[in-house]
Amino acid sequence: MFEKNLEIGFLLDFYGDVLSERKRTVLDFYYNDDLSLAEIAGEIGISRQGVRELIKKAEEELFFYEEKLGLAKRFRATEERAEELLSMMERGGIDGEIRDAAERLMEAVKG
Amino acid sequence: MFEKNLEIGFLLDFYGDVLSERKRTVLDFYYNDDLSLAEIAGEIGISRQGVRELIKKAEEELFFYEEKLGLAKRFRATEERAEELLSMMERGGIDGEIRDAAERLMEAVKG
Repeated sequence: MFEKNLEIGFLLDFYGDVLSERKRTVLDFYYNDDLSLAEIAGEIGISRQGVRELIKKAEEELFFYEEKLGLAKRFRATEERAEELLSMMERGGIDGEIRDAAERLMEAVKG
Repeated sequence: MFEKNLEIGFLLDFYGDVLSERKRTVLDFYYNDDLSLAEIAGEIGISRQGVRELIKKAEEELFFYEEKLGLAKRFRATEERAEELLSMMERGGIDGEIRDAAERLMEAVKG
């Protein structure tokens, strides 16, 4: 049994919509619903080994996108810095239109 | 002759690294170097019609990614709001660590 990679859940949220529906469903069952390989096999009607291979291919596809594009990492860094900025504004008592602009920025980051 | 779509240049910067090298090269010649179909045909040794088809397929692939993921739009909105925030800080005389944090945020957006 291979270990669940926590990074995958994040990449799945980010790039999942470009996977085939079958691959997305399998990763979703495995990472978000925490089903076992045997349970997923029962759900979609293929062998346990088939599920294992499908998960592996889907994971490789997610890693391919992130390796090529690096957008998940870029978004995460942007979000962290927006959080840092907002909490500095909070502590510094910065309010009004500048605080509003920072909050609109955060909404744009979250998409 | 089809019209050049200005949006493509932007999507090419954003998602170009997931295209095959051949497709990326052709779009790069066409959109960034402004070569004609005939010139590109000469460069890569296929017919003018072949170039036209390759450009069309590559464009469809870029549109597919953006339609599924919407990340280019999300980044562009984030960048615009970060610019807006920085210019409000400039006008408001906001300096020091909060301004620095906003500038680090902008660096993260630009990746």
